[in-house]
Amino acid sequence: MRVLGVDPGLTRCGVGLIDGAPGSALNLIHVGVIRTPADAELGARLVTIDRELAKIIDEFEPDAVAIERVFSQHNVRTVMGTAQAGAVAILAAARRDLPVVLYTPSEVKAAVAGNGRADKDQVGAMVTRLLRLSEAPKPADAADALALAICHIWRGGGKARLAAAVQRMGSKP
Amino acid sequence: MRVLGVDPGLTRCGVGLIDGAPGSALNLIHVGVIRTPADAELGARLVTIDRELAKIIDEFEPDAVAIERVFSQHNVRTVMGTAQAGAVAILAAARRDLPVVLYTPSEVKAAVAGNGRADKDQVGAMVTRLLRLSEAPKPADAADALALAICHIWRGGGKARLAAAVQRMGSKP
Repeated sequence: MRVLGVDPGLTRCGVGLIDGAPGSALNLIHVGVIRTPADAELGARLVTIDRELAKIIDEFEPDAVAIERVFSQHNVRTVMGTAQAGAVAILAAARRDLPVVLYTPSEVKAAVAGNGRADKDQVGAMVTRLLRLSEAPKPADAADALALAICHIWRGGGKARLAAAVQRMGSKP
Repeated sequence: MRVLGVDPGLTRCGVGLIDGAPGSALNLIHVGVIRTPADAELGARLVTIDRELAKIIDEFEPDAVAIERVFSQHNVRTVMGTAQAGAVAILAAARRDLPVVLYTPSEVKAAVAGNGRADKDQVGAMVTRLLRLSEAPKPADAADALALAICHIWRGGGKARLAAAVQRMGSKP
């Protein structure tokens, strides 16, 4: 299963693609950051994010897209930009009929570092180890995007195995 | 000048198109509400809003799009949906190279009712009067979308007249 993780943001939108399945090795396919200038118009920034995400989806053909769920408890200024960039990512995926799953930051941290309160360094270290990289992906947005993809592979995989087990039970003679 | 006003929302997204110029009569071209079911997936809801806005833009060819600026001070649950629907509207307009202008609710109220703290009924009454309608557009999202379009025509018109005056000064012999 190939998953695109997106850590949404207007200034920096992290994107990470991983191939993997629960219980087997994870493979890094692509990692990057879509940047838009803070002094550009909001519409132009959203168009850039939409266009770059479309390129990535069309080139790498993920099976699903995992996006960080935005909460409005945080900084009022940044949360709006994050919500707007996130909406563009959700739309880009849904327009192509790709399944979209949203994960909270603590779900992602719990999945990759075993602790919902893990800090950025721990998440970066685990992403580096799980993908057998020589150093942590920079900036943190890129590492977070990869963590989102890993979270989805592991959690989605768990659901898939459960569904398969239920199906086996149902098809018993 | 033809302006599309958008009052963004996931459950109800108000849209209103008005022809007009500062100092001349305003004409209602189209008013409506894009609705998406609360139990649908977020991606599917954003795709519906994007598709319906695209239809409206392609059919009525506005010169500009005025969208309500979302603040996160309000209800945490609804504000995220509003921000996401707003982002889709901004993207839909910017993708077609249409100018996008965001107005706060109090800017709109001040423009159409002369008071930034005017209530929904006052705004509805002024929209009804300015567009010479027999009754206020329903639901309030539709009236708010028309108010946004009126706000832009009057404010944009003011800026345009100022720009024209500056240009005339610059081109004096």
